[in-house]
Amino acid sequence: MSSIVKDILIRSTASDQVHARNKIKEKLGARIQVDQLRPLPRPIRLARSARCHGSSIEPSGFAKSEPGSRLRAEALLTPVSDPTSTTNKRVFTFGKGRSEGNKGMKSLLGGKGANLAEMASIGLSVPPGFTISTEACQEYQQVGKKLPPGLWEEIMQGLKIVEADIGAFLGDPSRPLLLSVRSGAAISMPGMMDTVLNLGLNDEVVEGLAAKSGERFAYDSFRRFLDMFGDVVMGIPHALFDEKLEYMKSAKGYKLDTELTAPDLKELVEEYKSVYVQTKGEKFPSDPTKQLELAVKAVFDSWDSPRANKYRSINQITGLKGTAVNIQCMVFGNMGNTSGTGVLFTRNPSTGEKKLYGEFLINAQGEDVVAGIRTPEDIQLMETHLPEAYKELVENCEILERHYKDMMDIEFTVQDKRLWMLQCRTGKRTGKGAVKVATDMVKEGLVDTRQAIKMVEPQHLDQLLHPQFEDVSLYKGSVIAKGLPASPGAAVGQVVFSAEDAETWHAQGKSAILVRTETSPEDVGGMHAAVGILTARGGMTSHAAVVARGWGKCCVSGCSDIRVNDSEKVAKLETHMVAFGRKILLKSCLLLMQFVSVGDKIVREGEWMSLNGSTGEVIMGKQPLAPPALTGDLETFMAWADEIGRIKVMANADTPEDAQTARNNGAQGIGLCRTEHMFFASDERIRAVRKMIMAVTTEERKAALDLLLPYQRADFEGIFRAMDGLPVTIRLLDPPLHEFLPDGDLEQIVSELTFDTGTTEEQVYARIEKLSEVNPMLGFRGCRLGISYPELSEMQVRAILQAAISLKNQGVTVFPEIMVPLELGHQVRLIRAVAKTVFLEMGTSVNYKVGTMIEVPRAALVADEIAKEAEFFSFGTNDLTQMTFGYSRDDVGKFLPVYMSKGILQHDPFEVLDQKGVGQLVKMATERGRAARPSLKIGICGEHGGEPSSVAFFAEAGLDYVSCSPFRVPIARLAAAQVVA
Amino acid sequence: MSSIVKDILIRSTASDQVHARNKIKEKLGARIQVDQLRPLPRPIRLARSARCHGSSIEPSGFAKSEPGSRLRAEALLTPVSDPTSTTNKRVFTFGKGRSEGNKGMKSLLGGKGANLAEMASIGLSVPPGFTISTEACQEYQQVGKKLPPGLWEEIMQGLKIVEADIGAFLGDPSRPLLLSVRSGAAISMPGMMDTVLNLGLNDEVVEGLAAKSGERFAYDSFRRFLDMFGDVVMGIPHALFDEKLEYMKSAKGYKLDTELTAPDLKELVEEYKSVYVQTKGEKFPSDPTKQLELAVKAVFDSWDSPRANKYRSINQITGLKGTAVNIQCMVFGNMGNTSGTGVLFTRNPSTGEKKLYGEFLINAQGEDVVAGIRTPEDIQLMETHLPEAYKELVENCEILERHYKDMMDIEFTVQDKRLWMLQCRTGKRTGKGAVKVATDMVKEGLVDTRQAIKMVEPQHLDQLLHPQFEDVSLYKGSVIAKGLPASPGAAVGQVVFSAEDAETWHAQGKSAILVRTETSPEDVGGMHAAVGILTARGGMTSHAAVVARGWGKCCVSGCSDIRVNDSEKVAKLETHMVAFGRKILLKSCLLLMQFVSVGDKIVREGEWMSLNGSTGEVIMGKQPLAPPALTGDLETFMAWADEIGRIKVMANADTPEDAQTARNNGAQGIGLCRTEHMFFASDERIRAVRKMIMAVTTEERKAALDLLLPYQRADFEGIFRAMDGLPVTIRLLDPPLHEFLPDGDLEQIVSELTFDTGTTEEQVYARIEKLSEVNPMLGFRGCRLGISYPELSEMQVRAILQAAISLKNQGVTVFPEIMVPLELGHQVRLIRAVAKTVFLEMGTSVNYKVGTMIEVPRAALVADEIAKEAEFFSFGTNDLTQMTFGYSRDDVGKFLPVYMSKGILQHDPFEVLDQKGVGQLVKMATERGRAARPSLKIGICGEHGGEPSSVAFFAEAGLDYVSCSPFRVPIARLAAAQVVA
Repeated sequence: MSSIVKDILIRSTASDQVHARNKIKEKLGARIQVDQLRPLPRPIRLARSARCHGSSIEPSGFAKSEPGSRLRAEALLTPVSDPTSTTNKRVFTFGKGRSEGNKGMKSLLGGKGANLAEMASIGLSVPPGFTISTEACQEYQQVGKKLPPGLWEEIMQGLKIVEADIGAFLGDPSRPLLLSVRSGAAISMPGMMDTVLNLGLNDEVVEGLAAKSGERFAYDSFRRFLDMFGDVVMGIPHALFDEKLEYMKSAKGYKLDTELTAPDLKELVEEYKSVYVQTKGEKFPSDPTKQLELAVKAVFDSWDSPRANKYRSINQITGLKGTAVNIQCMVFGNMGNTSGTGVLFTRNPSTGEKKLYGEFLINAQGEDVVAGIRTPEDIQLMETHLPEAYKELVENCEILERHYKDMMDIEFTVQDKRLWMLQCRTGKRTGKGAVKVATDMVKEGLVDTRQAIKMVEPQHLDQLLHPQFEDVSLYKGSVIAKGLPASPGAAVGQVVFSAEDAETWHAQGKSAILVRTETSPEDVGGMHAAVGILTARGGMTSHAAVVARGWGKCCVSGCSDIRVNDSEKVAKLETHMVAFGRKILLKSCLLLMQFVSVGDKIVREGEWMSLNGSTGEVIMGKQPLAPPALTGDLETFMAWADEIGRIKVMANADTPEDAQTARNNGAQGIGLCRTEHMFFASDERIRAVRKMIMAVTTEERKAALDLLLPYQRADFEGIFRAMDGLPVTIRLLDPPLHEFLPDGDLEQIVSELTFDTGTTEEQVYARIEKLSEVNPMLGFRGCRLGISYPELSEMQVRAILQAAISLKNQGVTVFPEIMVPLELGHQVRLIRAVAKTVFLEMGTSVNYKVGTMIEVPRAALVADEIAKEAEFFSFGTNDLTQMTFGYSRDDVGKFLPVYMSKGILQHDPFEVLDQKGVGQLVKMATERGRAARPSLKIGICGEHGGEPSSVAFFAEAGLDYVSCSPFRVPIARLAAAQVVA
Repeated sequence: MSSIVKDILIRSTASDQVHARNKIKEKLGARIQVDQLRPLPRPIRLARSARCHGSSIEPSGFAKSEPGSRLRAEALLTPVSDPTSTTNKRVFTFGKGRSEGNKGMKSLLGGKGANLAEMASIGLSVPPGFTISTEACQEYQQVGKKLPPGLWEEIMQGLKIVEADIGAFLGDPSRPLLLSVRSGAAISMPGMMDTVLNLGLNDEVVEGLAAKSGERFAYDSFRRFLDMFGDVVMGIPHALFDEKLEYMKSAKGYKLDTELTAPDLKELVEEYKSVYVQTKGEKFPSDPTKQLELAVKAVFDSWDSPRANKYRSINQITGLKGTAVNIQCMVFGNMGNTSGTGVLFTRNPSTGEKKLYGEFLINAQGEDVVAGIRTPEDIQLMETHLPEAYKELVENCEILERHYKDMMDIEFTVQDKRLWMLQCRTGKRTGKGAVKVATDMVKEGLVDTRQAIKMVEPQHLDQLLHPQFEDVSLYKGSVIAKGLPASPGAAVGQVVFSAEDAETWHAQGKSAILVRTETSPEDVGGMHAAVGILTARGGMTSHAAVVARGWGKCCVSGCSDIRVNDSEKVAKLETHMVAFGRKILLKSCLLLMQFVSVGDKIVREGEWMSLNGSTGEVIMGKQPLAPPALTGDLETFMAWADEIGRIKVMANADTPEDAQTARNNGAQGIGLCRTEHMFFASDERIRAVRKMIMAVTTEERKAALDLLLPYQRADFEGIFRAMDGLPVTIRLLDPPLHEFLPDGDLEQIVSELTFDTGTTEEQVYARIEKLSEVNPMLGFRGCRLGISYPELSEMQVRAILQAAISLKNQGVTVFPEIMVPLELGHQVRLIRAVAKTVFLEMGTSVNYKVGTMIEVPRAALVADEIAKEAEFFSFGTNDLTQMTFGYSRDDVGKFLPVYMSKGILQHDPFEVLDQKGVGQLVKMATERGRAARPSLKIGICGEHGGEPSSVAFFAEAGLDYVSCSPFRVPIARLAAAQVVA
């Protein structure tokens, strides 16, 4: 039931997203899907394209939002009198040319349901059906896992419309209607939730179906239904059915399922039915409406399954209501050789190449392709087998790309030469694919550059920026197997054989390669924890491949050369030269293998392995990796991003080499150069540092510092040279001095220091005791060093400015910015005084700035005072997060996982900026600082500088730049562009 | 030069004091003395009583403000066109019945100058003179320690007025005018700055003086002048003059100075003059105006001396401009036996008794009394010697008390029976004295209770609350000497013999008793560091006595039984029974003493000594101390404070005993009961705690917690009983678990834990490793424990509520408040659930509140969210300060002293709340918390809860209560009253 549009004006910006959402909720009840609001360049009126369904408003022009992106909306929305009212529409029908839903209603109908409705409404052939809304699922959970009042009646009404449309009826043997019952949430969770096909069959209906479509087909469908329904709805292990099947095949000497005859299948149906009685103590439910009810409930239940919850937790999927249930007429790809089923991407999701990419199976049902059980054929070959259907499919792909303005992921079935579209959605892709698709679509005129910017996710770039192998020719001799190149990139790690092990090893800081026969949804935790995944079975669209590509994780699938013995934690790899023991049971195979010494290789847990996800090669040992390059399409794409983005992206770099990498990655300067790293660069340096630390008098300290000055100056020269024409922000020494002491036990340390510094043991002991701290994070560090030992700051400032002048004299353009760590202290005067002296000594000067980190909460609170002296601020959000939360980064592992698992925190605040708390301080300091000094330059150099949603926040807060690791610069550049795109 | 009054309205409250000052400064130039604004009950118009001098505005009705107290003023003030103009009046004359200054002008004229002007203006006999302003001193410092332009001419004009008034002229032998030149800052700094008496004498003038007042007097004055001028102005050591004097006395066989004849003194004058030539290479400056110029400069210079700077730093005296210089006609107390000089308090400053308290010396100059060189007589005896002058003095005391409405400290001289008032000021007093004076003055009708509240400083109460000896009869046998009861209270410490040692020992955490022959201003650092002071020489108004009383530090002075050999660091104490070696040089005395074994005692550095400042007893050893009691006048006084104060004062108490002490001290509840302290209370408890810590499974942990429950419950019962009818806020376990591990090296710890908990060494090692933290302050503590181990919070909540119900059943009125430490976490639900269970189990319920500490900066930032769940907030300002500043309290010693000495911080933020930074968070959390929950109860339980200026801030910020240690409760009660008094 639709509602009257009223005048409620809601404006908000991304940084106020939570506030906006609450505001909207408050006005409308709890049902508006603000998650769905799409970033918009300027205010538009939502209401024009909004459809109102009950109290829930789905602005059809809006798609999934980018977290933290600019959100400006002006909407005329409908207030809701009773948000829990059961009169809300919960069942939405669709069919060719007519739909109650549309693609903007993902939140309510799930992605699958919304897109089915959309495809139907633009005239594509979609089997008629209806979608039960996610809100119904939410109600189902809320009322204690039972169908909420009235829902069943709505479902029956929807069913009637479908029956009338297709002229077939559920449970009617003469005009049998079979249904598929499929899950589908607003955000895709591949394989996480349940599906039931061929629903509606029983002893009577199967006879009717046999009469219409042949006996073999009917009973094959029935035994599939019994298997799937038993597994998904009744909780009977699939293996119990499979056992019967395999037994019959081996008894009859069949190799393939297709060899089973109609009588075989009839017999199998009876055996399958007996499995129900044996395991559940009751008969298979033969009433089709009962089947439907149980299937709907099973799908709703699967929303709350442990594996689904885990998947959402890993993928940080929150705020969803539940899964929708899509109930559609079955179409059959298994009605002989003029039928088939397939999945495809409209372009290659790995490379982005504009060429249909997918697989199909003749005479099969959809689940056969996705499940990776039979190895399907390339989609291009379909032109030969089913030319008309293929032609229509190609046309549909073009229609959908034009309509959605994106690369699509499609599922279809051909039933007796007729093409049916079963699903379409925006296709997941690799980073390489995303960039290629975006740039190609600009060239094709399908999208403009601003739209293209939004087609690549920051995570996509992350993949592209993952290292590749340094030189693939180097490892050729170590290739031990080859599988399918399921998800590109390179991975190097230690082999583990279970998802749990992958998680454990990851938690211990190790890189794990997860090796499995095939992966299942239960493995997602371990798959996420692993650096790479290798499977023995499954195609390019198998579970492992799809999930890994979604994460941009390197994956080699279908590597039939390997055998995995999970229980013994040893992977058996046959080389191509040896065909050996294929039929031997895995356990005995292992024993056998242990005696084989030539031509065979056993890989044990913990051994190093490298994977090339772009070629499918499996390589033994740790192969060297190289950083990726920004060239070709990526270069074009990044140039568009830089044109659009307003917040600058700088890099954190401590060496000339890092500075060069940063520049290659498009950094517009160095936002943070940590001088302490230079102190460790050689034995001479660290010895001089230790002398400085052990010094008792100022004179001794100065003498040690004099030794360090030339090293520092040389490093600064290299960095200034690399950053010719760009600003370089150099932070004075920050860490507590005890960090420069040697490692080891106390005696060792003392003897080393005594040797290094020529002081007595007693002095060394005394000094170490003096340096030791209870809470180093809150201790004697940062500017506190420079305030207590001004000669230390003096040396560093001198080195910076001498280097700058020397480079300037060589024609390099330098912009040194001297940054005081932790607090400003009273270091500005000292710095200016040293500068004056250096300029006098060297007979020339350079322009330089003096600024400070904003790292302690108090600095943010008194930013106006600090800005009177500081010419720039740089938020050290790592430390600011530590102190604002009272979380020591070194110790947070003890309780942060508990906080996350209990929902006290949504994100690790060291990864994603805590906008609510720390963000307040950032905004406060920015406003107060600028009020005191309008020209104040403000940036951020914590690790959040490379995290997209945080970058968006900083841009909104009005910062001038973010600075992140050189490797993450492109991601930050993209995020900076997406804020305003 | 006075200015026109214009319309500038300034309103401010105490919490905005800095802001108000800046605002006023901005409008008026830098000269307005806002420090001087007095706390006022309601807005008044300053301008009515303000006098304008140049650009400086001195509202005459205003006296020294209480820091942090409520300041409300509405003023019509004068803007200044050129604040550095040299045309500002800098010299202010005064004489009986006429004055250019008044007592409100302390900032400009110093305390001494302002009060001299005031006394003269109300008709008391004051030797005519003039005051050079503190601004002139400031200018003197600013222009490089020379007299600023025009000042000398102003001084000469002032001198002319004085000369005309008295009919005597500087340098005129026929009508000789001698001057005293005395320092005097706005805040008294006893003995810190310089004075020159008898200025104006030279060879000619002395002859004229001799003709008028006798030769002996004239030359005695001259040799005193030469000594003092040489010492103070020329930097010639006093000892060089003294040597000559002593040599002459011993050569002539004199014992007393008074035995010296006129010829002797003439000879001495010549010898003193030769000291000038020998040491300075030049003659004594005989030109009286030159003498005056040099003396004025010397006084100005003394403002900036190291000892004066140190005194100001210790006493946190900031914002003063400099010292004024008071130049007055000399009056002579040394003109024979009808003359004399004295100092007195209008009441006894130690006890407050209403009886003149002071000393006088016949035929002496004022410095003789203050310097403690001759032992003076009790002021009461003056009635016999100088009855008329004494009568006038008594009258003057009454006039001054009525005029100033306070106990006064007076200096006077009688010259040939005529009384001259030389100085008056509000008298420093002990805590006991302050309370007695305040309560007596209310009874006498001189002040009302609100005024009385302001007459006692929080520090005064601090003294009263210092421990006394438990039982004085206990130590009678150990009394080894008796001196003057110079500053009451009890002190127990280890003997040191130099100020430096006292500071060093104090820094090492030791309690030092400083033993000196006499103290000098150079000793103030050590005096402050010591817990008690013992001097061999000096009276009740000696340097040691005055300074110690000012600080409320226990002091026994003039203990003539002891001899101190500083260089050998041994104090020699003769018992009363042995009269021995008084004339022997100290060094040889020491050697001798080392062979004396009976009846003599040698006390060496580091030996324990106890002092009774109320009786003058010196006791060997550590005598037991007892807490003081709130009875008599103090009880009356505190009752007035409670009537006036609005913010409640609660106490931090962890045991029934502490709770009782708190209640005795007037606490209105327990604001913080730390449960962790109970864990240490016995071996059984700590063993159970360790079992809990070592537990691997939840079951093991629960079992250990079950052991702890009865202990906790019993403690809570005791506390609830002690606080019958008052709220008790109990904080759940806060410290990191590793704090409960045993001390010692790792092996010891492990073996003890293995024994205590019955776990294996391996498990213990593993657990210890798991517990260890890099930054415990930011680690696994506070509610993080209860979130990770809910069973821990459960046990504590259960113990609290079981105890509460059991006490309720016994007729005790309980108000338990359960406080979650660090953050709220999600503990509210757990607490409410446990409560429900306990109430069911016990068949009855109690009202209770659940609240949280606000200790991490983020909690303040998101206080609105927290207040949705929390019923009360308690600011943990200790931790909040640590995290807001990024200062670890354990490590701050490495740099905080440098910050203080460099002026980066004015106060230790752990002692005095940082209103600018941390205070912002307190206000923010209060506002946001109350916005979300108007009934929110808000308090503070950090150590700032007992610090007066911080209490004032919390009251202004709208908090409901402060909670401090039981011992500081009365101080907080007073501070709470003074905010609104």
